[in-house]
Amino acid sequence: NSRIFFKNAEAAMPLLPTRPTEIMKYGFPSNTNLKMRENYVLSYDTRCRNAHWVFEHLTRDLVKVDENSANREEHNFQEDGSIPKPFRATNQDFFRSGFDRGHLAAAANHRANKHWMADTFYLSNISPQHPQLNRNAWNNLEKYTRSLAYHYDNVYVCTGPLYLPRRENDGKLYVTYQVLEPNHVAVPTHFFKVILCERQGHFDLKSYMMPNEPVDPKIPLKSFMVPVEVIERASGLLMFSGLDTGKLRKINSGKETKL
Amino acid sequence: NSRIFFKNAEAAMPLLPTRPTEIMKYGFPSNTNLKMRENYVLSYDTRCRNAHWVFEHLTRDLVKVDENSANREEHNFQEDGSIPKPFRATNQDFFRSGFDRGHLAAAANHRANKHWMADTFYLSNISPQHPQLNRNAWNNLEKYTRSLAYHYDNVYVCTGPLYLPRRENDGKLYVTYQVLEPNHVAVPTHFFKVILCERQGHFDLKSYMMPNEPVDPKIPLKSFMVPVEVIERASGLLMFSGLDTGKLRKINSGKETKL
Ligand SMILES: [Mg+2]
Ligand SMILES: [Mg+2]
Repeated sequence: NSRIFFKNAEAAMPLLPTRPTEIMKYGFPSNTNLKMRENYVLSYDTRCRNAHWVFEHLTRDLVKVDENSANREEHNFQEDGSIPKPFRATNQDFFRSGFDRGHLAAAANHRANKHWMADTFYLSNISPQHPQLNRNAWNNLEKYTRSLAYHYDNVYVCTGPLYLPRRENDGKLYVTYQVLEPNHVAVPTHFFKVILCERQGHFDLKSYMMPNEPVDPKIPLKSFMVPVEVIERASGLLMFSGLDTGKLRKINSGKETKL
Repeated sequence: NSRIFFKNAEAAMPLLPTRPTEIMKYGFPSNTNLKMRENYVLSYDTRCRNAHWVFEHLTRDLVKVDENSANREEHNFQEDGSIPKPFRATNQDFFRSGFDRGHLAAAANHRANKHWMADTFYLSNISPQHPQLNRNAWNNLEKYTRSLAYHYDNVYVCTGPLYLPRRENDGKLYVTYQVLEPNHVAVPTHFFKVILCERQGHFDLKSYMMPNEPVDPKIPLKSFMVPVEVIERASGLLMFSGLDTGKLRKINSGKETKL
């Protein structure tokens, strides 16, 4: 019988946690086309040629700047050869599109190792992003996210694109988004970032949504906070479903709610 | 060592093919949110609240009409309780929407067993479909698909929604689709059906695409044939990737190409 197998000495050895398992400790938002990188995990949307989500785990040691930090100037954006060609974004899609190649897993979050940083330059981790969002308010949100790693023991970050409906003149709701040629790379209408912060077993959850358009960096970041359920409903993803919600303090809508 | 396990007598017993394994014999188009029904297999798109695809296997015995055939009048459309509530279509979404509840796996394909037919009435197998498509040209395509089961040994059918881009006045490509309230159920712009027909080890592949709008049933079905690669590129799915393409005769674009 099969119990013979589990009596085997090797099977009784302690599990060695791998980096993807650490990053995904509190659950996968979905299980579609998973890519396990050295320092982040990604789910790929073959229809929209964007990620569904990327997941990172930040700590003070991982994000600190020192003389060994990787330099983003040394890296180039590259096609992700692990994705079938018809579903793959290329640099040509972005060229003269008017959109930046916006990182989902931010390059600077992976500065502890140059190979890790190089992995963030795969176009599977990139979405078409308005330059005046990428370089200002979104960049500030990324910096704020890194700063949290100094105030908590562990910071888990899930980032991705959204395609939100809008009410048109006929009174009906429509989703409309541009696709870049030649590979039909979707231009998201919005982006989300959901951040789970843990310190000594206590958890805070902060969720943000920004439109893919020029955003005034003088608007406080907390103005972009939304209940995590809004992001779940719009994205079709379940956030941190592996976490006991009784332990969670949700910080959103500008109001801090103690649960 | 682990070989002990495989010496076990039970493990050496022959595999019993299950129905989902028969249906999916030539490969899964994707691995997202799979639902194994008694007589079809479905992949669910939690963002669009539609299936990504449904897969069926038809034979003459399964589709024939006799005194035991199930009756579609005995079945009601029902929510799919296996899908998390925020991502689930309900009858309310369709009520007064102007769209039919269009089957992807056609009810009549599952008439051999009333439980099988009931499974096709889950709203996860339903897309908002224009009444003048559902009741005319699309219905004719479904009937034609069933007729193929009389001419071949096995017919494998993959059906799903598409969200195609269109060039707007600014010269750029945009995807636009309506979403039904309250659950934001996407209204596909088009539908596809890819049919693999096998007789004595020879394979014919026929692929169709129709717009989600009134389609004149007098237009011959072969006018809606497209290369399967067009459907793959638009859907982000890979069709019958488990099949040796050297064996395949692709029948499309009105021209029959012998490979
Ligand atoms: Mg950026
Ligand atoms: Mg129908």
